[in-house]
Amino acid sequence: MQPQRDPRGLWLLLLSLFLLLFEVARAARPVVSCPAACLCASNILSCSKQQLPSVPHSLPSYTALLDLSHNNLSRLRAEWTPTRLIHLQSLLLSHNHLNFISSEAFSPVPNLRYLDLSSNQLRTLDEFLFSELQALEVLLLYNNHIMAVDRCAFDDMTQLQKLYLSQNQISRFPLELVKEGAKLPKLTLLDLSSNKLKNLPLPDLQKLPAWVKNGLYLHNNPLHCDCELYQLFSHWQYRQLSSVMDFQEDLYCMSSKKLHNVFNLSFLNCSEYKERAWEAHLGDTLTIKCDTKQQGMTKVWVTPSNERVLDEVANGTVTVSKDGSLHFQQVQVEDGGVYTCYAMGEAFNETLSVELKVYNFTLHGHHDTLNTAYTTLVGCILSVVLVLIYLYLTPCRCWCRGVEKPSSHQGDSLSSSMLSTTPNHDPMAGGDKDDGFDRRVAFLEPAGPGQGQNGKLKPGNTLPVPEATGKGQRRMSDPESVSSVFSDTPIVV
Amino acid sequence: MQPQRDPRGLWLLLLSLFLLLFEVARAARPVVSCPAACLCASNILSCSKQQLPSVPHSLPSYTALLDLSHNNLSRLRAEWTPTRLIHLQSLLLSHNHLNFISSEAFSPVPNLRYLDLSSNQLRTLDEFLFSELQALEVLLLYNNHIMAVDRCAFDDMTQLQKLYLSQNQISRFPLELVKEGAKLPKLTLLDLSSNKLKNLPLPDLQKLPAWVKNGLYLHNNPLHCDCELYQLFSHWQYRQLSSVMDFQEDLYCMSSKKLHNVFNLSFLNCSEYKERAWEAHLGDTLTIKCDTKQQGMTKVWVTPSNERVLDEVANGTVTVSKDGSLHFQQVQVEDGGVYTCYAMGEAFNETLSVELKVYNFTLHGHHDTLNTAYTTLVGCILSVVLVLIYLYLTPCRCWCRGVEKPSSHQGDSLSSSMLSTTPNHDPMAGGDKDDGFDRRVAFLEPAGPGQGQNGKLKPGNTLPVPEATGKGQRRMSDPESVSSVFSDTPIVV
Repeated sequence: MQPQRDPRGLWLLLLSLFLLLFEVARAARPVVSCPAACLCASNILSCSKQQLPSVPHSLPSYTALLDLSHNNLSRLRAEWTPTRLIHLQSLLLSHNHLNFISSEAFSPVPNLRYLDLSSNQLRTLDEFLFSELQALEVLLLYNNHIMAVDRCAFDDMTQLQKLYLSQNQISRFPLELVKEGAKLPKLTLLDLSSNKLKNLPLPDLQKLPAWVKNGLYLHNNPLHCDCELYQLFSHWQYRQLSSVMDFQEDLYCMSSKKLHNVFNLSFLNCSEYKERAWEAHLGDTLTIKCDTKQQGMTKVWVTPSNERVLDEVANGTVTVSKDGSLHFQQVQVEDGGVYTCYAMGEAFNETLSVELKVYNFTLHGHHDTLNTAYTTLVGCILSVVLVLIYLYLTPCRCWCRGVEKPSSHQGDSLSSSMLSTTPNHDPMAGGDKDDGFDRRVAFLEPAGPGQGQNGKLKPGNTLPVPEATGKGQRRMSDPESVSSVFSDTPIVV
Repeated sequence: MQPQRDPRGLWLLLLSLFLLLFEVARAARPVVSCPAACLCASNILSCSKQQLPSVPHSLPSYTALLDLSHNNLSRLRAEWTPTRLIHLQSLLLSHNHLNFISSEAFSPVPNLRYLDLSSNQLRTLDEFLFSELQALEVLLLYNNHIMAVDRCAFDDMTQLQKLYLSQNQISRFPLELVKEGAKLPKLTLLDLSSNKLKNLPLPDLQKLPAWVKNGLYLHNNPLHCDCELYQLFSHWQYRQLSSVMDFQEDLYCMSSKKLHNVFNLSFLNCSEYKERAWEAHLGDTLTIKCDTKQQGMTKVWVTPSNERVLDEVANGTVTVSKDGSLHFQQVQVEDGGVYTCYAMGEAFNETLSVELKVYNFTLHGHHDTLNTAYTTLVGCILSVVLVLIYLYLTPCRCWCRGVEKPSSHQGDSLSSSMLSTTPNHDPMAGGDKDDGFDRRVAFLEPAGPGQGQNGKLKPGNTLPVPEATGKGQRRMSDPESVSSVFSDTPIVV
């Protein structure tokens, strides 16, 4: 007897086969398709305003832009994406409730260039949080509750150009981010406006190149009012830096619990800001930077007599170095005047004028001859002469005591006279310490205002007394160029 | 009697003075501050999800990013911003209800680099709508109702790199956007997925360089199924182009109102796609492009004997030209083999192999001697000989009619014989039309497979019959290089 066929069994078999085929097809599928909550346009995934409590699972590996803004995300864990998204360039996470980001959250997206974490509830930025984002160019962190920026939070972000930290609770200025030779060599914009900054490292800020200061936003902070602050921002205003020009009305400072505009501090009686000329002495080596508001501009220098300064290859006392700085090998009196730097950039051109004053005397002049060897030699000769005088020209009473030895006291005085002319052996100089500079300063100090190096009166040359700090004095000041002026001049007394 | 002072008058006076001072202060203010509906972080204005029915008035001139996404904007008029925003780089208008954009709307933002108009209700893109955006790099227009792209909508956008037109109603492929030497020379991504495209200009698409095809997204369109389409995408798949590899499952075509995956067209019995070798003949001039998936890669060619091909400066039959192409001055039999192009790019490296087959005979060989002048001369001599024969060697019966002229019929035949050997004067050739190529093909066609140019059998050389269209045959096909192979070879029959 033939067994009766069960139609349900056949159906089950067909269904199993279908599911098997479906699974095989899924397994063979090379990529994950568009998540349900998102709108996908080739490599863009737009999942904004979907009330998502977490990042959708299984994002396609080819994603270049992922928009998760206006959702309900509160934590970004290390495993937020199971697949590495090596093509992801932009990640938008603004307008969520993020209060935690794992220190490994950005490991799967090493090629990110734009990260928007604005309008969230972040409180701290942990050590090395963004350090894996070595291709990141723009980082938006404004409108959070950030109180402290870890000194290492932005380590190794060599490509970072713009960092927005506005509208947070930051009270310490993160100088490590902008200092020359610092961690973020390409940073052109650092927005610290609307925070809780009270004190700024003013001398360090003034030393920064103009292209950093141009993008250093500090308005809407309860800064401490003083004349140094006024001088700093007045200089920035004179240079027409965007960070000051765009927010002049919002640049406040606080004094006696009252807010004042930093350009209206009449109650402090600060002296008016005035650009100073560069000053040099005959024969000095001098480098003046063309301190432009933008990096990588093409620079051309023009002399006071309207001639173009040639580059380093040309022979001349004044040349333009590779980085566009004006370089004087040996300053001459006729080098004085107003030099103009014309800088051409992609976005705009810039013209900078620098005045150079040259004093008609050297800082070291005739003292070149008074070097150690020379003075030692003179001291030796003098000592020998003294010995000879002592030996042969003593009064005749000595003839009575012909065999008497010279007294030890006199020998000591001879020795001390020799040592006094050779300062390196002076027991008062403090051991082996190279204190040549200290001694040089003492030696070269002019006798008084209006007097030359050797006490001669120099009519018309009034030497301004240099301030110890040197802050805010020179137009286009630069620590390197200033130090090079002295370090390149071999003054040894 | 002294008039009584009115305290209200004094208050009004003070109030007027205060308002006057306030107005003066406002007028002197150099910049407009942050609009009420927006969150401002230095040069970023974030006004998203504020139910704005129109763009806020008086935007600050320093704005670099303006986010107006998720609002209720419906029209973008010419005067949407009274001030020019020359610093604006990114304008985000996605997730609004925009159905109209004035043709002058983008005049105030000439330096825009990123424009997001996705998820709106745009229906048409008018002539020259985006033409003023000559710095624009990315344009997002996905998820709109665009039915037609005006041929001039994207004119002069020389910097445009990415154009997203996905999820619209476009039914015509905008070939003018990607054609070589076209309006958008930097376009590397054109997303036309999820539209209504039925027919594609397949021969034109196949001619495009790989770096354009790599970013040409065509999935989710009701394309017409045929073998040419299959061959096109099979080639793209072989080249591992992103546009095909990332969306293999979504590449559909339509046949008999049914959707089919383009790689599963068994019902059409299309021949399998196979990469073909480059073919050349002895002495040919040949240029093979290193058709990489990315622009601006550094290219190095290696010969079949694993030697590096030197650049143009070096003397040799094979050199690498400035654009990285392999160039053969005169192909030799020993040049045959597999050449490898190693391309190094910023994002990835690529290796391409090209096989070159060289036939051991020239395409023109002995036919060089059969030029027009030579054949005309031979024809003339032959005619004169015939005339002489006719005149002097006719049978003796002619002696009886010694003064009889040659018949006009014979004169005609002589003339026609001369003309038949000088094809340029052939009345059947269609006037002055230069039909040298047609005639050349007829002349050079090999007698049959395995036979040489002159009908001689060439053992081991099986000549594949060339197809008239030449589509999808050559690996790394390029219209320029193909045409140069023939146009540089002076073949005149």
